[in-house]
Amino acid sequence: MKKSFGPKTLVFPTPVWCVGSYDTKGNPNVMTIAWGGICCSKPPCVTISLRKATYTYGNIIEKLAYTLSVPSERYVQEADYFGMATGRSANKFKETGLTPIRSELVDAPYVREFPMVLECSVIHHYEIGLHTHFVGEIVDVKVDENMLDNDGMPDIEKIRPMIYSPEVKRYHGIGASIGNAFEIGKKRG
Amino acid sequence: MKKSFGPKTLVFPTPVWCVGSYDTKGNPNVMTIAWGGICCSKPPCVTISLRKATYTYGNIIEKLAYTLSVPSERYVQEADYFGMATGRSANKFKETGLTPIRSELVDAPYVREFPMVLECSVIHHYEIGLHTHFVGEIVDVKVDENMLDNDGMPDIEKIRPMIYSPEVKRYHGIGASIGNAFEIGKKRG
Repeated sequence: MKKSFGPKTLVFPTPVWCVGSYDTKGNPNVMTIAWGGICCSKPPCVTISLRKATYTYGNIIEKLAYTLSVPSERYVQEADYFGMATGRSANKFKETGLTPIRSELVDAPYVREFPMVLECSVIHHYEIGLHTHFVGEIVDVKVDENMLDNDGMPDIEKIRPMIYSPEVKRYHGIGASIGNAFEIGKKRG
Repeated sequence: MKKSFGPKTLVFPTPVWCVGSYDTKGNPNVMTIAWGGICCSKPPCVTISLRKATYTYGNIIEKLAYTLSVPSERYVQEADYFGMATGRSANKFKETGLTPIRSELVDAPYVREFPMVLECSVIHHYEIGLHTHFVGEIVDVKVDENMLDNDGMPDIEKIRPMIYSPEVKRYHGIGASIGNAFEIGKKRG
């Protein structure tokens, strides 16, 4: 039997991504989101949704650029703080001791200490309701060299991204590998 | 040092969700996606992106409804198969022995055996590039009663959703809890 929870933003998993942006004075800001996902392969695009009340919203509307920095689970405190404080009154980089790096490709900063970074240029944005939906074209993906596997690809077990559970409001880490896609399904039945 | 991978749909984590739809003859279909995410809190909405070439695309354009069924990791073979086969030539429910349940709220079926289900009504869809972006308003979330925690909320460690690594093409499970959101960040520094 299934229990009905009604119309809620309740689904697993959602990501933990830190959105980097500059304000009009050039101050770097970063906020954590779980409302986002890849939305197109060609051009490669990733969406994020923001409330207009956030400082990041105004920054991105102005610059039409953002980064996503993927925190490792060892940075759970910093990532959670980035989702609570506001760039209007706090310099979140200074408060945490993390380092803003200016992207050479888009007008936004990323977090040096976080192992995986996407640099995005906004190609669409529109209103859905409480949230504004931004579609960012991914112009580059950067990954720490010590987080790669033997094939030179990003190793999720080294990067250790986090999972967020909406409504329950809890973070989880990554578990074991459970198979290769487009391969394990051939064994079905 | 960070290594540059260029413009790619490479980010961790992405979800593993099975999209349920009916074709014009009323046949249930299901396909697995990783391109999606929550996009608004009010109204609660979740996006999915589909290529026009998929059978599911035509179904959703016709019905303006879909479900998301979240597979537990024990169903990794079925979920992977749902992403490889096409509803044009295969009855994926029959092939796997899984059960389509007709939603009472939207014109789409979900997977009975999967522990978490979202029923969605399409409120927007538009072209980005290779993929069409669908915004679905979540009209209900249903979770198996034996997958709830002591507070009656969905327990991610029982549901055991999967994580997909794009480009690397691998599934991972959920790891340990690493803290409560809007709480652990207060301890920073």
